Amino acid sequence: MSKSKLYSLNSEKVASATNEWLAKRGVTTKQIAELVMFLQKDYYPELTIEECELYVQAVLSKREVQNAVLTGIQLDLLAEEGKLMPPLQEMIENDEGLYGCDEILALSIVNVYGSIGFTNFGYVDKLKPGILKKLNDKEGAQCHTFLDDIIGAIASSASSRIAHRKQAEREGNMDLPLD
Amino acid sequence: MSKSKLYSLNSEKVASATNEWLAKRGVTTKQIAELVMFLQKDYYPELTIEECELYVQAVLSKREVQNAVLTGIQLDLLAEEGKLMPPLQEMIENDEGLYGCDEILALSIVNVYGSIGFTNFGYVDKLKPGILKKLNDKEGAQCHTFLDDIIGAIASSASSRIAHRKQAEREGNMDLPLD
Amino acid sequence: MSKSKLYSLNSEKVASATNEWLAKRGVTTKQIAELVMFLQKDYYPELTIEECELYVQAVLSKREVQNAVLTGIQLDLLAEEGKLMPPLQEMIENDEGLYGCDEILALSIVNVYGSIGFTNFGYVDKLKPGILKKLNDKEGAQCHTFLDDIIGAIASSASSRIAHRKQAEREGNMDLPLD
Amino acid sequence: MSKSKLYSLNSEKVASATNEWLAKRGVTTKQIAELVMFLQKDYYPELTIEECELYVQAVLSKREVQNAVLTGIQLDLLAEEGKLMPPLQEMIENDEGLYGCDEILALSIVNVYGSIGFTNFGYVDKLKPGILKKLNDKEGAQCHTFLDDIIGAIASSASSRIAHRKQAEREGNMDLPLD
Repeated sequence: MSKSKLYSLNSEKVASATNEWLAKRGVTTKQIAELVMFLQKDYYPELTIEECELYVQAVLSKREVQNAVLTGIQLDLLAEEGKLMPPLQEMIENDEGLYGCDEILALSIVNVYGSIGFTNFGYVDKLKPGILKKLNDKEGAQCHTFLDDIIGAIASSASSRIAHRKQAEREGNMDLPLD
Repeated sequence: MSKSKLYSLNSEKVASATNEWLAKRGVTTKQIAELVMFLQKDYYPELTIEECELYVQAVLSKREVQNAVLTGIQLDLLAEEGKLMPPLQEMIENDEGLYGCDEILALSIVNVYGSIGFTNFGYVDKLKPGILKKLNDKEGAQCHTFLDDIIGAIASSASSRIAHRKQAEREGNMDLPLD
Repeated sequence: MSKSKLYSLNSEKVASATNEWLAKRGVTTKQIAELVMFLQKDYYPELTIEECELYVQAVLSKREVQNAVLTGIQLDLLAEEGKLMPPLQEMIENDEGLYGCDEILALSIVNVYGSIGFTNFGYVDKLKPGILKKLNDKEGAQCHTFLDDIIGAIASSASSRIAHRKQAEREGNMDLPLD
Repeated sequence: MSKSKLYSLNSEKVASATNEWLAKRGVTTKQIAELVMFLQKDYYPELTIEECELYVQAVLSKREVQNAVLTGIQLDLLAEEGKLMPPLQEMIENDEGLYGCDEILALSIVNVYGSIGFTNFGYVDKLKPGILKKLNDKEGAQCHTFLDDIIGAIASSASSRIAHRKQAEREGNMDLPLD
């Protein structure tokens, strides 16, 4: 379509929209941090929830993550409003098991933090602890077909980052950035 | 959301919706077959456009491909109608270079046919021959941010399938299914 | 390097080498089928181990799967023999948590069957049931850094295939090929 | 296998081995930077080769990239020495078109920098400019089946990073780290 003459990407708007929409959909960084704790506490007993939250925020600061979050929430919203084309409407509305575009967007988040996150993603996606159970509750009025996978991916990515950073600390390199 | 009591996946509807929407968006299997020809003619001089079209139809018969096609076209349509949330609306409407969810959906198609398709996907996505040039024309009234990558992925997948099948034929195995 | 004049791919050799090497490494299709059972029995109570084994064999008939199996076992073998370059030797020998090429090869198997397999892969890779526990036993003389992830990926892929086929059966299409 | 009691990951050794092996295999960061130039000069006329080299070094500082480089070079070396199991030996030695594990390792590098790198990867992998042509020369005594894809992936990743950073600069954020 004819490019809007005035278009220019505003990264801050993308970042703030991501955080606003997560809040509107009932997800806090604290809840995602609790998933990270669930995944990492056995390996790092000293890990605090505040520390996990910092890693979650670092993951959320990545553009690829923001793009996936906004795109996934958008599709969930449209499914709620019944505004998608059939049969996409039915598949997303019912979290059809053979519809995998939600896992695909989620994996694009995990990939940014390397392959060591795949295992954690699959694990929380199957067990659905904490906020994931709430998002996956099919009785509510909301549709979170995309968001639950995306939140699991963000928690797995934060876990990968922790593994990298803890190793750096063991080796005496304290300068590794959070993200 | 409360699962519609009567929901059950209808694969035929998903398949037919995929073909109908490709047609509505101005893409024919013949045009995709021409991309396959562009990618494969140097390796298989005897390849015919009719044969390429059969491979394209075989790729389009895969559920993962159908899911990606419908999801991508849906997002393109909503961008055209200006119905996406800002800043997603601006990013998709303007095919923002730093927005990569279109490449992600496309890659999920290529993956189904194995990694040998990555190269062809990137190549046609860069050169934009035939229908891809038309889809990528920013002056039209339509938005094909997702569809152009998806069509390139379908052509690359068909090319991968041809490579596998031609090898099977060289080895005297004529029974390899098209898809 | 100078292409061996007489080279031509022999798909049968690749397939048979895959099965021979899995056997040499102590993995039977029955054991992989038990992983599939573990993943699928709750969804399909009538599923039999013989049926699962047929799906595993179908997955193993795919070239991408065979390539990943052979490449992974080769790297495990060389690590056992201490023939890899440092520090790759130490990382693979000790299944270094920050070394993810094993997960990458495994994911390339899962991808062939679509994104719905990611969850199952991460789940078995974390829980390590059955043969995975045995492969992951660090006290033995063997190194299975790559193979345990690859076996988990094959079981997840077979599970994805089951999900697709059972749906086809529900819809009255009994002709869907196993692979 | 029995974990060597004294094992602990030494990240510096992994990083230095990566650079040493690239040099031993005849690849300089300057040559990779020239690939980046080839991919980016039309978009950023002011881009210098020195700047490109800094981005290449930043990509090479990532652990996932180092893991893929070392694993790929190791397999190339073993193929040169004829030490791989048949038929893996023949497939890698002859850069078999239906063997895709080289593309898979390469893609794991691209993924770390987000999906916008896929197109550039496929494009250089097809055109084989500069060092890629040299690596791909089948007449030499060396085998670079894995390395040529990996180098293309590093150049594509550096290109992705440039796109992100140039956008940050346009928005007045000069603090974005190179990697």
